Amino acid sequence: MAHPASTALMTDRYELTMLQAALADGTAHRRCVFEVFTRRLPAGRRYGVLAGTGRVLEAIERFRFGDAELSWLEEADVVDALTLDHLAGYRFTGTVHGYAEGEAFFPASPVLVVEGTFAEAVILETLVLSILNYDSAIASAASRMTTAAGDRPCLEMGARRAHEEAAVAAARAAVVGGFAATSLLEAGRRWGLPTIGTAAHAFTLLHDDERGAFAAQVASQGAGTTLLVDTYDVAQGVRHALAAAGDAPLGAVRLDSGDLGVLAHEVRAQLDAAGATSTKIVVTSDLDEYAIAALASAPVDSYGVGTSVVTGSGHPTCGMVYKLVAREGASGELEPVAKASASKASQGGRKTAARRLDAHGRATEEVVVSGRDEAVVAWQPADGMRPLLEPLVVDGEVQPGWTGAEGVRRATRRHQESRAELPRVARRLSADEPGLPTVHLTV
Amino acid sequence: MAHPASTALMTDRYELTMLQAALADGTAHRRCVFEVFTRRLPAGRRYGVLAGTGRVLEAIERFRFGDAELSWLEEADVVDALTLDHLAGYRFTGTVHGYAEGEAFFPASPVLVVEGTFAEAVILETLVLSILNYDSAIASAASRMTTAAGDRPCLEMGARRAHEEAAVAAARAAVVGGFAATSLLEAGRRWGLPTIGTAAHAFTLLHDDERGAFAAQVASQGAGTTLLVDTYDVAQGVRHALAAAGDAPLGAVRLDSGDLGVLAHEVRAQLDAAGATSTKIVVTSDLDEYAIAALASAPVDSYGVGTSVVTGSGHPTCGMVYKLVAREGASGELEPVAKASASKASQGGRKTAARRLDAHGRATEEVVVSGRDEAVVAWQPADGMRPLLEPLVVDGEVQPGWTGAEGVRRATRRHQESRAELPRVARRLSADEPGLPTVHLTV
Repeated sequence: MAHPASTALMTDRYELTMLQAALADGTAHRRCVFEVFTRRLPAGRRYGVLAGTGRVLEAIERFRFGDAELSWLEEADVVDALTLDHLAGYRFTGTVHGYAEGEAFFPASPVLVVEGTFAEAVILETLVLSILNYDSAIASAASRMTTAAGDRPCLEMGARRAHEEAAVAAARAAVVGGFAATSLLEAGRRWGLPTIGTAAHAFTLLHDDERGAFAAQVASQGAGTTLLVDTYDVAQGVRHALAAAGDAPLGAVRLDSGDLGVLAHEVRAQLDAAGATSTKIVVTSDLDEYAIAALASAPVDSYGVGTSVVTGSGHPTCGMVYKLVAREGASGELEPVAKASASKASQGGRKTAARRLDAHGRATEEVVVSGRDEAVVAWQPADGMRPLLEPLVVDGEVQPGWTGAEGVRRATRRHQESRAELPRVARRLSADEPGLPTVHLTV
Repeated sequence: MAHPASTALMTDRYELTMLQAALADGTAHRRCVFEVFTRRLPAGRRYGVLAGTGRVLEAIERFRFGDAELSWLEEADVVDALTLDHLAGYRFTGTVHGYAEGEAFFPASPVLVVEGTFAEAVILETLVLSILNYDSAIASAASRMTTAAGDRPCLEMGARRAHEEAAVAAARAAVVGGFAATSLLEAGRRWGLPTIGTAAHAFTLLHDDERGAFAAQVASQGAGTTLLVDTYDVAQGVRHALAAAGDAPLGAVRLDSGDLGVLAHEVRAQLDAAGATSTKIVVTSDLDEYAIAALASAPVDSYGVGTSVVTGSGHPTCGMVYKLVAREGASGELEPVAKASASKASQGGRKTAARRLDAHGRATEEVVVSGRDEAVVAWQPADGMRPLLEPLVVDGEVQPGWTGAEGVRRATRRHQESRAELPRVARRLSADEPGLPTVHLTV
C-alpha cells in the first residue's frame, strides 16, 4: 500500500508544544470549535471548489502516534513524557461537519467545522489544511477547465509536474472538478479513477522509423489506440498512422506541439479526406482553461491537461485557515473567540451556512449564520435555502459514503450539481468578483 | 514508516503500454540514453537549483512491482501477461549520472542522464520528473529567499499550503536552498532536519487572557520560547510577553500581521527600552523573497516563510523533461535521436557538462558538450572548467552519500558553494536573462 501508515507527524511542531503547555495548565481539555474558511478567493476567481474532504477523513482515521512516531518525538525532544503518554492514546473523538466534497465555496464559507477538546482538535490543523488547500486548488482550476471544455472530455496528465504523492491527489481532485480520467496509475488504483494514455515521442524515436513505431503500437494496443503524430512531420505522421491502422478504424491521433487550433483543422481535413471520420483528435501541450476556450471552435475531441491543472492554474494553493472560533470558558459555556488586532481579524463563534436559491433553483447568496452557539446549532434554513453543512464525523466515527472511491464519485456528482446551480455569470472565466455574495446572518 | 512501500505506480499509463508494445517487437531491449533538462528557466529567473536527486535515487530503489501492484495492473487490464511477468522481475540495472543535488542549473543543463534498456529506463519518466520538478521549484525559490535574507535565518513553515507529502519534500528542498529549519515534524524525522515552532493565535484565544497564555507557554517551554504577540494589541502583547518571562531573558517574539517593517522597529524599541536587548524578533505572514528584501533594514532576526516557498514563489514546478536522446540502432551502436517537428525540438545525443570559471573562481559559462557518443563519454574538462556530472547509480547500484539525511547535508553544502561561485549579477532578484550563458560544445 502506498498510503503512509500514520499521518500524525504531518504536523507543525508548535501544535505539539502548544498541546504540552495546555496539558500542563489544564486548558487542553476545554471544548473547542475550529473552523476552516478562506478570507478571499484567488484574485479574479468566481468560485472555489471544495476538494479533499474524503482524504481528510481518511487521514484523521490514520492520525495515530505509534512507536515509531513516539520514539522519534522523544529522541528529538519535541515534547515531554506526559505529552507523549497523552499522544500514545490519541484518538479523535469529536465531531466534524463540513460542506460536501465537490461543493462550490466563497469567502467566509465555513467549509469544515471541527469540534472537540483543544487537545484533540488543535493537532489536526496542519494536516487538514494541507489536504484541503491543495486538493481544492486543483479542483477549482479543474472546474474552470471542464466548464471551458463543455462536452469534450478533459484528461488529467500532469503527474510529472507535481510532487509524486501530490500528483495522486491532483488526479482525484481533477476528477472531482469534472475531468474524465487520469494518466496516473496510482490514482487509478487508489481511487478507482479511469486511467488513459497514448504514447510518448520516445516510443517513436526508439524505433527505426515512425511506420515501425506505429505498427508496433497498433499490433500491441489495437487500432483503437491513440497515435502521437507530431514527432516528425504531422501530415506524414497522420498518413503513417492511418496506414498502421489498415482497414480498422484508428481510435485517435494526438497533437502535442505547434499551433493546435490550426493543426487540428488540417488534421481533421486530412482524416476526413481519407475516410477516417471516426478517428478522434486529442490535443495536449500546455493547455489551461483559456487555451481550452480558445480551441472551442477547433475540431478537437478531447483535451489532455498537465501542468496547469496540477498547479492550480496560477493558484497552487488556497488560502484556507483553521481558526479557533469558540471555546469553553471558565463557566463551562462555549464562548466566541477571535484575533482582534488590525489585520487578519476574523469573526468569532460557530457558524453554519446555506445557499439561497431563487424560484428557478438558481443560487443567489452564500448565507453564513452566526450568533449564540445554541441558536446556530439549532438553526434551520428557511424555504429557498439549501443547507450546506453535513455531518462527516460524529463522536469520532467517520460517517459512511464520504471516503474512498465512493467518496470521489459522490463528490464528482455534487460538484456537477453545485456548479449547475450557480448563475451563468459566476461560471465565466473572466476575472471578476466572487459569483455569489456572502451574506452574514445573525441568529 | 511514512514512505510508500512501492513507487512503481507513480507512473503514467502510457509508459507501461509503450513497454508492452516494445517487448512485443523486441525494441524494449535496445540500449537507451534518456536526459533530463529544461528548455528554459521560469521567466525572469537567473538560475535554477537542482533538488530531489537523493529522493529520486531512493524512489528508484523502491520501484518494484509487488503482488499488490501486479494484481491491480491485471484487474485494470493495463498490460498483458507477458508484460506483467517482465514487471515482476523489474530492477533498474542501468547507470545514472547527474548534477550533484544543490547545484545551480541553466537552460539545457543535462541534470540527469539515465542509461539502460528502453524497458528499464522509460518507465521511470513520470516518477523522476515529479520529484525533480517539484523539489527543484522549491529549492530555486528558497535560494532566492535566503539570498535576500543574507545572514538572517529563513524558517520553512509552509506545510499547510502544500499537499501533506509534498510538504515533507518542500521542507527538505527549502533546506537545500539554504533554509535553516522547518516547522514540519515529519521532515525532521525523515531527513534529520532541525524543527522549530512558536505558537498559534489559537493558544492565546484558548486561555482566558493573553497573560495566562504566555505564562502557560513560558512555564512549559521556558523563557527561551517565542511568544506570538499580535493576537490583540502588539505593544500590550510585548509587555505581557516580557512579564511572562520575568527575570529570565525572553527568547523571541513573533509578529504575524500588520506592517511588519514598522512593527519590527516599534517592537525593537520597546524591547530595548525594557532592557530585553537579547530578545529576538521573528516575522511571518506572506513573506516572499521581495518582502524579505524589503525588510533588510528592519530589526528582524529571522523570517518564517510559508506559502511562497512551498509553492515555488510563483513557479510551482520546473519545466524539466525526460527525453530519449540516443538509442541502440540496428547496428548495435548508440545513435542520437530527437523530435524533429516545429516546436519542442531538442538536440539529440548524449551530453555531458561543465561550468567554466574565470581566474577568480567565478562562473562564466555553462558548457554543454555533445558529439560522437564515445567522444562525449571520454570528454575531460579543460583547465578552468569544473565537471558537473557525477555517477549516481552504477550498474543498478545507488552510489553512497547521495541519499537520506547525509544526501541533504551534502546538497545543502553543494548549493552554498555553487551559488557563491555565480557572478553577483546572477544572484539578483530582479527579472533578467539566465545568469550564465549556456554554450554548446561539440566534440
